[in-house]
Amino acid sequence: MDSISLIGMVSVITAGLTIAIGSIGPAFGEARAVAQALSAIAQQPDESATITRTLFVGLAMIESTAIYCFVVAMILIFANPFWDHVTAAAGG
Amino acid sequence: MDSISLIGMVSVITAGLTIAIGSIGPAFGEARAVAQALSAIAQQPDESATITRTLFVGLAMIESTAIYCFVVAMILIFANPFWDHVTAAAGG
Amino acid sequence: MDSISLIGMVSVITAGLTIAIGSIGPAFGEARAVAQALSAIAQQPDESATITRTLFVGLAMIESTAIYCFVVAMILIFANPFWDHVTAAAGG
Amino acid sequence: MDSISLIGMVSVITAGLTIAIGSIGPAFGEARAVAQALSAIAQQPDESATITRTLFVGLAMIESTAIYCFVVAMILIFANPFWDHVTAAAGG
Amino acid sequence: MDSISLIGMVSVITAGLTIAIGSIGPAFGEARAVAQALSAIAQQPDESATITRTLFVGLAMIESTAIYCFVVAMILIFANPFWDHVTAAAGG
Amino acid sequence: MDSISLIGMVSVITAGLTIAIGSIGPAFGEARAVAQALSAIAQQPDESATITRTLFVGLAMIESTAIYCFVVAMILIFANPFWDHVTAAAGG
Amino acid sequence: MDSISLIGMVSVITAGLTIAIGSIGPAFGEARAVAQALSAIAQQPDESATITRTLFVGLAMIESTAIYCFVVAMILIFANPFWDHVTAAAGG
Amino acid sequence: MDSISLIGMVSVITAGLTIAIGSIGPAFGEARAVAQALSAIAQQPDESATITRTLFVGLAMIESTAIYCFVVAMILIFANPFWDHVTAAAGG
Amino acid sequence: MDSISLIGMVSVITAGLTIAIGSIGPAFGEARAVAQALSAIAQQPDESATITRTLFVGLAMIESTAIYCFVVAMILIFANPFWDHVTAAAGG
Amino acid sequence: MDSISLIGMVSVITAGLTIAIGSIGPAFGEARAVAQALSAIAQQPDESATITRTLFVGLAMIESTAIYCFVVAMILIFANPFWDHVTAAAGG
Amino acid sequence: MDSISLIGMVSVITAGLTIAIGSIGPAFGEARAVAQALSAIAQQPDESATITRTLFVGLAMIESTAIYCFVVAMILIFANPFWDHVTAAAGG
Amino acid sequence: MDSISLIGMVSVITAGLTIAIGSIGPAFGEARAVAQALSAIAQQPDESATITRTLFVGLAMIESTAIYCFVVAMILIFANPFWDHVTAAAGG
Amino acid sequence: MDSISLIGMVSVITAGLTIAIGSIGPAFGEARAVAQALSAIAQQPDESATITRTLFVGLAMIESTAIYCFVVAMILIFANPFWDHVTAAAGG
Amino acid sequence: MDSISLIGMVSVITAGLTIAIGSIGPAFGEARAVAQALSAIAQQPDESATITRTLFVGLAMIESTAIYCFVVAMILIFANPFWDHVTAAAGG
Repeated sequence: MDSISLIGMVSVITAGLTIAIGSIGPAFGEARAVAQALSAIAQQPDESATITRTLFVGLAMIESTAIYCFVVAMILIFANPFWDHVTAAAGG
Repeated sequence: MDSISLIGMVSVITAGLTIAIGSIGPAFGEARAVAQALSAIAQQPDESATITRTLFVGLAMIESTAIYCFVVAMILIFANPFWDHVTAAAGG
Repeated sequence: MDSISLIGMVSVITAGLTIAIGSIGPAFGEARAVAQALSAIAQQPDESATITRTLFVGLAMIESTAIYCFVVAMILIFANPFWDHVTAAAGG
Repeated sequence: MDSISLIGMVSVITAGLTIAIGSIGPAFGEARAVAQALSAIAQQPDESATITRTLFVGLAMIESTAIYCFVVAMILIFANPFWDHVTAAAGG
Repeated sequence: MDSISLIGMVSVITAGLTIAIGSIGPAFGEARAVAQALSAIAQQPDESATITRTLFVGLAMIESTAIYCFVVAMILIFANPFWDHVTAAAGG
Repeated sequence: MDSISLIGMVSVITAGLTIAIGSIGPAFGEARAVAQALSAIAQQPDESATITRTLFVGLAMIESTAIYCFVVAMILIFANPFWDHVTAAAGG
Repeated sequence: MDSISLIGMVSVITAGLTIAIGSIGPAFGEARAVAQALSAIAQQPDESATITRTLFVGLAMIESTAIYCFVVAMILIFANPFWDHVTAAAGG
Repeated sequence: MDSISLIGMVSVITAGLTIAIGSIGPAFGEARAVAQALSAIAQQPDESATITRTLFVGLAMIESTAIYCFVVAMILIFANPFWDHVTAAAGG
Repeated sequence: MDSISLIGMVSVITAGLTIAIGSIGPAFGEARAVAQALSAIAQQPDESATITRTLFVGLAMIESTAIYCFVVAMILIFANPFWDHVTAAAGG
Repeated sequence: MDSISLIGMVSVITAGLTIAIGSIGPAFGEARAVAQALSAIAQQPDESATITRTLFVGLAMIESTAIYCFVVAMILIFANPFWDHVTAAAGG
Repeated sequence: MDSISLIGMVSVITAGLTIAIGSIGPAFGEARAVAQALSAIAQQPDESATITRTLFVGLAMIESTAIYCFVVAMILIFANPFWDHVTAAAGG
Repeated sequence: MDSISLIGMVSVITAGLTIAIGSIGPAFGEARAVAQALSAIAQQPDESATITRTLFVGLAMIESTAIYCFVVAMILIFANPFWDHVTAAAGG
Repeated sequence: MDSISLIGMVSVITAGLTIAIGSIGPAFGEARAVAQALSAIAQQPDESATITRTLFVGLAMIESTAIYCFVVAMILIFANPFWDHVTAAAGG
Repeated sequence: MDSISLIGMVSVITAGLTIAIGSIGPAFGEARAVAQALSAIAQQPDESATITRTLFVGLAMIESTAIYCFVVAMILIFANPFWDHVTAAAGG
């Protein structure tokens, strides 16, 4: 097994697992926040503006962790410095 | 085992696992949000418009993590740069 | 072990596991939404139309993650580009 | 180990595990929905028609994920394209 | 290890695990439905006919997933196409 | 390792694990149903006949999954077609 | 490693694990039923006869799964057909 | 590794694990029953005789699963038919 | 690796793990019983004699499972028949 | 496998897993804090300023752990001293 | 790997794991008992003498399982009969 | 595999896993403390100063465990004495 | 791999894991006891002296299990009889 | 693989895992104690001095287990007697 196969294989595996594992937390987390927001609106409809605003700030924070994972997965597939090095070395 | 077999194998495995693992979080999460929305409507029917609107925003956010996984799985099957490289190298 | 055996094996395994793992989340999730809908109807029968409509939208969203998995499994069995490549290479 | 043994083995294993793992989610999910339906009928007997109808729609949705798994298992046992290929190749 | 041993071994293992794993979900699920039915009867004795009828429909749905697993296990033991192929090949 | 050892070994292991794993679900499930029945009798003594009858139907359904596992274990020990084949082949 | 060692080893391991794993479910299950029975007696002393009778039927059902495991373990130690075959073959 | 080492090793391991794993269930189960009995006595002191009697029957049933495991462990250490066979064969 | 090393090693490992795993259940179980006894005394001080007596019987039953494990561990370290056999064989 | 392949592979794998695992905790944690904040606003609307301020401080603390992981992942991809060493050694 | 290395290694590993695993149960268990005692004192201050006495008996029972593990760990480090045998054999 | 590759690889893996695993506890812990603080402020607004001060002391203590992990990860990447030794030895 | 490497390696691993695993139980346990003590003080301030005294006895008992683990870890690092033996043998 | 690589590798791995695993318990534990303290202050503001003092004693006890782990990790990195031995032996 040469370097290209190895680096390629682990990049594929890692990219997939990173976004797969990394989507579990945000999906559950956002669901929890949304569910609680719905419950709060039902309980205190007059505060729905404040609740919705706080919810959106929170969702943005939670989504950020999913985006970190997506960014790393995209870097590993399309801008992988290790892959660039070994293909350059093989082609050089 | 040559490069083509290896890259091909891990691409298949990773694509499948990515969408399989990645669907667990959103499925549970959306279910939680929907369930809470139904409960909130039953409790406060007059706010059903606000509740539904907030629910749909939340579902879109949660679904986005499933879509990240689906996108990565599709890239790995149909637009895989590592596969393209090794088949080009083998055919060149 | 030649390429055909390897690609074939992992395609079989991955297709099965993808749909098996991918059915856990939606099955639980839909059950939760349905159970809550039934509870909401019992609590507020007058809103059963709104509740049912919201339920069906939610079930469609949750079912979509199961369908992503089913689509990937079918692609891996019947329209697998890696398998096509290696059988073409072997037959060529 | 030749191709026939390998493809045959993993098909057997995968078919069994697919339906085994895939039956956990629907079994729990349907039980939850049925249990909640029974509870709702006991609480609001006058709505038993609406509850039963909503329950059956929900059970059909949940059962569908079990059926996806059963379909994949049957395909792997009786209409497996990878098996057909390798037995044709061996017999040709 | 020849084909007959391999196919035979994995068929034995898979048949056992399929029914073993596949019996966990239905056993828990049916227990939950039965327990809730008993609770509902104790709470609303006048509806025991409706409750029992809904319970039996639900148990049939849940049992169906156990039966899928049993069917697959029996197929693997007594009507296994892979086993038939390799024994025919060995005897031919 | 010849075929007889291999088939024998996996049959022993599988038979034991099948009944061991397969007894977990029914044991818990029956306990749940019995516990709920006792609670229901304490709450509504006048319905003890209906409760007991429903309980026994439920226990029979749950026990059936344990019996599937026991049947498969017994088949693997005393009427194993794979074992019969290899011992016949060895003795022939 | 000859057949006698192999069949002997796996029989020892399987017999032990079968009864060890198989005792978890019944022990928890019986405890649950007993605990609920005690609670029911404390709540409704006048029904203690009915409760005790139902409890004993339930304990018998639950104990049956432990006995299945014990039977399989004893068969594997003292009446193992695979062991009998290989020792007869070795002694023949 | 000769037969004596192998059979001896697995007997040691299995005997230990059998009693170790097999003691978890009964320990928790008995604790649950005792705890509930104490709670029931505190709630209904006049029924302490009935409660204690039912408790002891239940503890005996639960302890029986621990004793099955202890019996199997003792058989594997001091009356192991497989060990007797291989030491007799080695000494013969 | 000769027999003495092998039997010695697995005896050391098994003795340690047996008592380590076997202490988890009784420790939790006794804690549960003691905690409930304290709660019962606080709730019904007049019954403290009955509660304490029942507690001690229960603790003795639970401790018995820990003692089974300790006995097996001590047998494996200081009165191990398999070790005696192999050291006698080596020294003979 | 030379040093470059090895260091490259483990850097890819570790970078992906670090951010994937490291995003689970913050995502759940932030969701919990946001959900509780929404609940607190619904309960005490007059304190929404204090609640929001405390929430933001808390989110910043929780986000910091996600950022530690992201920083380590970026260091491993783009400023990895071990990779620099081995590529310098290989190129030197 | 000679006998001394092997027996030494497994003794080190087993001693550490025995006390590590064996401390989990008692630590949780004692915490539970202490917490409940504090709760009982707060609820019924007049019974603090009885509560404290029962607590100390319970803590002693629970601590005993930790001490079994500590004793086994110390025996394995400082009075290990297997180690004594192999060092005597090596030195003899 | 020479020393440099080995020490480099495990340093990369360990640094990543240390901060990844080490961020789970603090993230959940801080979330719990913040959530409870928000709940306490909503319940007792007059004590918000005391609550906030106690919260910050607690967050500092909890964050300290995350910082221990970050420090160890940084030491392993940038001030690793084992790496320094082997690179000095290789360069010497 | 000579004896010194082997004994050294496992001593390092075991020492670390022993204190790492062994700190989980006491940390949770002490937290539970402290939390309950704070709750009890808030509920019954007049008994704070008794509560605090009982808490400290309990914390000492719980901490003792952590100290057992720390002692074993220190013995394995600084007073390891197996290490002393093999270094003496190597140096002799 | 020589002794230096081996001892170095396991020291790196163990140091990282020790502090990573060892930080989970204290982080959760301290969070629980802080959360309960905040709740107690909100419930009984007049006792905030006693509560805070008890909290700090508890946090110190809990933090001690994290510090044990940190100390062991630091010893393994900077004052490792096994590493000192093998580097001295290699340099001697």
